[in-house]
Amino acid sequence: MKTPKISLPHNPFNFIKKQKQEIGMSPDALYFRGVRKSENILLNIIDFDSEALEEKSLQNIAEAFPYSKKETVTWLNVDGLHDADLMKNISDGFELEQLILSTVMDTQARPTVQEFDNCVLVSIKMLQQDPDTNRISVENLSLILTESMLISFQEKKGDVFDPVRERIRKNRKRIRSSGTDYLAFALLDIVIDNYIYILGILGEKIEALEESLLVNPKKDVIEEINTYKRELNFIRKNIKPAREMILSLTKLDSELIDDDNEIHFRELQDNINQANDTSDSYREMLSDQLNIYHTTISSKLNDIMKFLTIFSVIFIPLTFIAGIYGTNFDVVPELHYEYSYYIMWGVMIIVAVGMLIYFKKKDWF
Amino acid sequence: MKTPKISLPHNPFNFIKKQKQEIGMSPDALYFRGVRKSENILLNIIDFDSEALEEKSLQNIAEAFPYSKKETVTWLNVDGLHDADLMKNISDGFELEQLILSTVMDTQARPTVQEFDNCVLVSIKMLQQDPDTNRISVENLSLILTESMLISFQEKKGDVFDPVRERIRKNRKRIRSSGTDYLAFALLDIVIDNYIYILGILGEKIEALEESLLVNPKKDVIEEINTYKRELNFIRKNIKPAREMILSLTKLDSELIDDDNEIHFRELQDNINQANDTSDSYREMLSDQLNIYHTTISSKLNDIMKFLTIFSVIFIPLTFIAGIYGTNFDVVPELHYEYSYYIMWGVMIIVAVGMLIYFKKKDWF
Amino acid sequence: MKTPKISLPHNPFNFIKKQKQEIGMSPDALYFRGVRKSENILLNIIDFDSEALEEKSLQNIAEAFPYSKKETVTWLNVDGLHDADLMKNISDGFELEQLILSTVMDTQARPTVQEFDNCVLVSIKMLQQDPDTNRISVENLSLILTESMLISFQEKKGDVFDPVRERIRKNRKRIRSSGTDYLAFALLDIVIDNYIYILGILGEKIEALEESLLVNPKKDVIEEINTYKRELNFIRKNIKPAREMILSLTKLDSELIDDDNEIHFRELQDNINQANDTSDSYREMLSDQLNIYHTTISSKLNDIMKFLTIFSVIFIPLTFIAGIYGTNFDVVPELHYEYSYYIMWGVMIIVAVGMLIYFKKKDWF
Amino acid sequence: MKTPKISLPHNPFNFIKKQKQEIGMSPDALYFRGVRKSENILLNIIDFDSEALEEKSLQNIAEAFPYSKKETVTWLNVDGLHDADLMKNISDGFELEQLILSTVMDTQARPTVQEFDNCVLVSIKMLQQDPDTNRISVENLSLILTESMLISFQEKKGDVFDPVRERIRKNRKRIRSSGTDYLAFALLDIVIDNYIYILGILGEKIEALEESLLVNPKKDVIEEINTYKRELNFIRKNIKPAREMILSLTKLDSELIDDDNEIHFRELQDNINQANDTSDSYREMLSDQLNIYHTTISSKLNDIMKFLTIFSVIFIPLTFIAGIYGTNFDVVPELHYEYSYYIMWGVMIIVAVGMLIYFKKKDWF
Amino acid sequence: MKTPKISLPHNPFNFIKKQKQEIGMSPDALYFRGVRKSENILLNIIDFDSEALEEKSLQNIAEAFPYSKKETVTWLNVDGLHDADLMKNISDGFELEQLILSTVMDTQARPTVQEFDNCVLVSIKMLQQDPDTNRISVENLSLILTESMLISFQEKKGDVFDPVRERIRKNRKRIRSSGTDYLAFALLDIVIDNYIYILGILGEKIEALEESLLVNPKKDVIEEINTYKRELNFIRKNIKPAREMILSLTKLDSELIDDDNEIHFRELQDNINQANDTSDSYREMLSDQLNIYHTTISSKLNDIMKFLTIFSVIFIPLTFIAGIYGTNFDVVPELHYEYSYYIMWGVMIIVAVGMLIYFKKKDWF
Repeated sequence: MKTPKISLPHNPFNFIKKQKQEIGMSPDALYFRGVRKSENILLNIIDFDSEALEEKSLQNIAEAFPYSKKETVTWLNVDGLHDADLMKNISDGFELEQLILSTVMDTQARPTVQEFDNCVLVSIKMLQQDPDTNRISVENLSLILTESMLISFQEKKGDVFDPVRERIRKNRKRIRSSGTDYLAFALLDIVIDNYIYILGILGEKIEALEESLLVNPKKDVIEEINTYKRELNFIRKNIKPAREMILSLTKLDSELIDDDNEIHFRELQDNINQANDTSDSYREMLSDQLNIYHTTISSKLNDIMKFLTIFSVIFIPLTFIAGIYGTNFDVVPELHYEYSYYIMWGVMIIVAVGMLIYFKKKDWF
Repeated sequence: MKTPKISLPHNPFNFIKKQKQEIGMSPDALYFRGVRKSENILLNIIDFDSEALEEKSLQNIAEAFPYSKKETVTWLNVDGLHDADLMKNISDGFELEQLILSTVMDTQARPTVQEFDNCVLVSIKMLQQDPDTNRISVENLSLILTESMLISFQEKKGDVFDPVRERIRKNRKRIRSSGTDYLAFALLDIVIDNYIYILGILGEKIEALEESLLVNPKKDVIEEINTYKRELNFIRKNIKPAREMILSLTKLDSELIDDDNEIHFRELQDNINQANDTSDSYREMLSDQLNIYHTTISSKLNDIMKFLTIFSVIFIPLTFIAGIYGTNFDVVPELHYEYSYYIMWGVMIIVAVGMLIYFKKKDWF
Repeated sequence: MKTPKISLPHNPFNFIKKQKQEIGMSPDALYFRGVRKSENILLNIIDFDSEALEEKSLQNIAEAFPYSKKETVTWLNVDGLHDADLMKNISDGFELEQLILSTVMDTQARPTVQEFDNCVLVSIKMLQQDPDTNRISVENLSLILTESMLISFQEKKGDVFDPVRERIRKNRKRIRSSGTDYLAFALLDIVIDNYIYILGILGEKIEALEESLLVNPKKDVIEEINTYKRELNFIRKNIKPAREMILSLTKLDSELIDDDNEIHFRELQDNINQANDTSDSYREMLSDQLNIYHTTISSKLNDIMKFLTIFSVIFIPLTFIAGIYGTNFDVVPELHYEYSYYIMWGVMIIVAVGMLIYFKKKDWF
Repeated sequence: MKTPKISLPHNPFNFIKKQKQEIGMSPDALYFRGVRKSENILLNIIDFDSEALEEKSLQNIAEAFPYSKKETVTWLNVDGLHDADLMKNISDGFELEQLILSTVMDTQARPTVQEFDNCVLVSIKMLQQDPDTNRISVENLSLILTESMLISFQEKKGDVFDPVRERIRKNRKRIRSSGTDYLAFALLDIVIDNYIYILGILGEKIEALEESLLVNPKKDVIEEINTYKRELNFIRKNIKPAREMILSLTKLDSELIDDDNEIHFRELQDNINQANDTSDSYREMLSDQLNIYHTTISSKLNDIMKFLTIFSVIFIPLTFIAGIYGTNFDVVPELHYEYSYYIMWGVMIIVAVGMLIYFKKKDWF
Repeated sequence: MKTPKISLPHNPFNFIKKQKQEIGMSPDALYFRGVRKSENILLNIIDFDSEALEEKSLQNIAEAFPYSKKETVTWLNVDGLHDADLMKNISDGFELEQLILSTVMDTQARPTVQEFDNCVLVSIKMLQQDPDTNRISVENLSLILTESMLISFQEKKGDVFDPVRERIRKNRKRIRSSGTDYLAFALLDIVIDNYIYILGILGEKIEALEESLLVNPKKDVIEEINTYKRELNFIRKNIKPAREMILSLTKLDSELIDDDNEIHFRELQDNINQANDTSDSYREMLSDQLNIYHTTISSKLNDIMKFLTIFSVIFIPLTFIAGIYGTNFDVVPELHYEYSYYIMWGVMIIVAVGMLIYFKKKDWF
């Protein structure tokens, strides 16, 4: 199998930053913080119970309000967060506190679980790999969970939730006969599965590096390691707060979450813990690889330097001897013996070989 | 966008220090610890409920006392902490324990939350960027929260609270119809937003460095990294105890804080946690950058040393050969062949090229 | 005693990875995740109480269902997890939630304890050394504990539980008169004993290295250390989540676990804690060994470089002197004294010896 | 301001050590462990309530016994711990368990809080700077707090408590109208203030080093850093257990400590936490300084080595050329052209300049 | 005072290891795990109350059984653990669960506290210095604490408990009038005192090294540091689990431990915490020493290399100049001036001195 490729989004770390004008705003001001990723706002609704199923896309949010009174499970999905008026309407139409929608509009907010009188707000970062460019995109997902509705907010069109839609359409008993809490679980489960999927792609590259490192450490290994480290940090930075969020979620004692479904939320926790463990292992592997690389490189350099130094040292006395007999003293008896030149060569060879033997014996090369 | 600049205050770390004479003072002595930053003390009052609004600056603290009996929300702001008499008057006039005002006067105190019989004391460090010099100033902010009053103490005139004043003036329903606790939240929110704002400015510089580092690591990078590290430490040193303080605040079970407003205090906590996470990420980035820099520099040095050593080594045997034929022995047969000199050159070139090939093959350069 | 050898499995770290098609599956889908390790599925049953004992292998799972109604303790062992139909039958026949068997089929799942209405699910990784190849195999073991049955699931035929079977057969009073909880303990005890056993084999190699390191550090030591580190990481990666699982198990307040047996589960905890401590110690030892190795190597290299440099330095002035008297100036008075040549030698020897003395005195070699 | 100097005590770390004969002693044996620091034992008493004040020094401990029955607050200070008989008398006279006085006599004991039936025992290390020698002394302070008495034990005459005595004498209302718990707080407050004071002196030296390091890193910087590190470790080693002790104290639920005074004990905690934070910051600063120093030194050395190597390399081909024309071949045509010598110089200069340009271009110096 | 010496036992770390045949044993099998250290098993009994005292050595364990019914405190000491029959007898005779004695026989078990129906089991490692060889021995001590009996198990004859026996014999009121819990405390106290004593001996060596390191760092320092590190690790490895055990002991809420004696168990905790702190400090000291050593060595090497390189560099241009005038060109005008040779010397001296001045100025040596 060819290792799939991934690349980081353009601004991977999405560090929170505040503009001067944002300071001091009222906490429930409906102000969109983030980069607008879609032009139009799309509204889709799936309404079902174990028997009936209705799917349609809405032109106007007002069409969705009646569903909130129905006993059936209704999943309203909103793609695009930048329209304050729409948010105001949602707040009024579904009788949600404005603060909730203000939080939804802040795409830089930390993954969080908040319990309100009539609903629970859950938000998490979605990682998604663009199938064409392999570039990962980060998107903020907010879920508002009420008795009979689940409203999901995404920054732009296109998501990873098609398997859930399929399960609903195919009348898989479990999902059709459960409430909004199970639906929320199903969505979060996919989000975390995508963390693991993307982590797995990176992992394969790291494991491949492991082998190539032992065979022949090239100089660009270090760049590769740094790239992977950066990519891993990116994933970890998203896993860590998601993990805290999931933990809060399992501890949440809300009437909106059925006791029977708690086991699923604990399963989410197991999954994200496992993702976290794996990312820890990868980090250790990268750190070990870096050490191995440095050790190999420095040991190789030492070998070169040692070789070259020994080489120089062997010639130093030879050159000295030649220098001696290049002097122009009137009286240098050795110069006039017939075999002096050959003797000089002999001495030089003996000196050189002697030094080689000495160095070898001392285990210097 | 041009990256805005920041610079640290003159004494950024403001480490606690005690003078000999301060040791052993009574804990409720009204003694000003810190640097006097303003000459005059300014007293301003804003009194409001959902209908009326009154704003004025006071000549005398006694003018403020009647407000403490009114049902309306009153925000008394005091700029300047060095006047022990005034503090004594405030203590008496508002029936506050003297210990509270003694704590207010200690500008080196740690951010803290303390609950008293009739009030809550909150203190935090304010970071503020001077718009002209870009220098950050640190100021101690203390808030005394009673049933109907919020007394804020600052070290000098000028603050970051204008957005809140605007919201009060413009009759934003939320703030005008809430109590002193919401007002306190609004002020703390701005303080923390400023942490994030300043962190963001530093962050942009660090991210810019990231790129330039990969392109061309210059020697002054290390100085830049050290500067940023120092600046980041400065911000972290302020975030850390503020975070502990906010945590205590959310856990505080005081009648003065309305249950409905608890969600806002939890939001404060989310914000400061996010600021903390981001500062952790920046620290890791700086540490990674330092590693990359060192690796790059040392790898470059190794390349130079290797090149130069190899260069020397190639000439060593050549010089030796020349030395041999500079000797003055009577009998050196080679000297007398007609083409010896050219042969010597040939041998030398063969030796040099041979060594180059050998080194290349061994992957030494 | 000759140190036994071990080697890691082919894919030792078994990092969780998800395929695209696995994302979004229903949590109770009976989907086998892992590598199929056996062709056929084997079903064995041991049924006993303090008096009677029955052992047989089943052709059909339906034969096992009646045992679930019997008062006796029944241990059903299933080798092979890939058959979804069988799992479905087990779920129906023993009235177990399908989610349980879905978890059993996921061989990549994290060791876990989950309490259900009528049973407890325990899963752990088994490490086992193949007696022929010395290669370690990792296998997922799941135990379903009900009032009168213990169902164990393994990935393939062959296990480490023969001592327990022997104890049952030999009518060891303790095990024959206890319930399924004690049987589960006995199995987990063996799994952990195998961790310790394998850790011990690795430990002996590390301790042997310790000695050889002090005697003569060879270059391949570093490879050995890296190998051991990898092997130790592998074991640690299995111990860590097992430890968490055992801790949850001791905290479990289930009716299925008798109070009298709690002491045994605490003993499990002691054992795994001890294994963990030991693995920590080994890690420290490896890290110390690495340091000692690096220190030794670098100190040796420094010695060589120092020696060689000093050697070169001694010849430098000598060669210079020879060079001086190789010049062809018309007037070089020294050239014409009769003993000049001998004096030159004398000076050279004095210079060389003087430098040696100087270096020795400065403690440079 | 001239930075005040401090120096460590002779045996700064005062590590616990046991002599053979001390092993196995009964825990309430009145055995003095430590170095006897004073010849005579001094007994002083201050007895006061909000109206009256009595101060005297005692010849005999028996004179103090009646005070334990009085309603007034009595502070008995004992300088010198080596007299087992006196301790026995105190134990009997004030009806204190002998174990308490046994702990008091162990000057190596860890700072601790222990609650007994009729009293609370608090012990802490006092750091004090000798005004003449600037040497810091460490002394064990034990406080026994009963309903109406505070007995303080010090190792030798002379302490830091004069400000408290002054406050008592000057009839500062707060201290004169409070009980023994407030008096204990006042003493502990001074002890911690002294920690901060001494930490501040060290801090100024570290901050001064920070600046000088950036200007001109000298070799003795490393010795200075090591000295400061040692001094900081010394202070930290005393702060750490004191901090634990203060924490236990604030958690203590004793009738002997008035609810109103709990706020003061929390203040102690704030102070010691702040001292701890500051010492952490100083430690980081020292560690950063060490890094900067090493980076600077190694970068400087690299520059030197590079310069010198390049210098050598430039001369190598030049010397080689001269060697070529020093050969004595019969036929070396170049030797006989009239301008050969000048051409040789030209070639040499071209080679040297060419190499310099090449190196410069490659950014090697 | 001459520093006493210590040396580690032959197999200091006593890492747990399992033999193949030990895997899968029943937890209450009476199987001796460890090295048999004594041939015979010795049984001694001390029976006392505040009035009477009886001491004798037993031939047969059955002689001890009647004591278990007596009201007096009985201390039964067993030296030697390898006799399964004896253990079986003890189990039956004193009505102790067999599991307890199975744990006692496992000398590799982790220090532990276990509460049973009628007794408490405490086990800890004893460190003891052989007075002749200075070698430390590690021995497992198990204490079984019942209402009226304390049974202590040691691996071999000879222990550190003579001071306790003396205190019992001399009718020290405290120990004679207390129960078995106080006796157990007294024994554990001695064990911990021995930790501190041995730590103190090692500490003195480390502190001595500290001084010698600053004066003259020799090469064997590194070996010494490694030895001490190893010895410290050995002690730490024993302190750490003992500390956990003592903590469990203080938290134990058993009727067998009198409330009055709880303060003594807390004292144990203080002692072991202090030992732990001290061992932490020593570890830091060793780590600092290692750093200082490396810094010193590398700085010294750098000095040497710099000196030698500079030395070489000064001669390089001089040798070049001599080379120039060793050429045999027909026309080298300088060769024929009368003072050329002296001028050459002059130039050489000027060049050499000039370079020295330049290097000095650049602060290179």
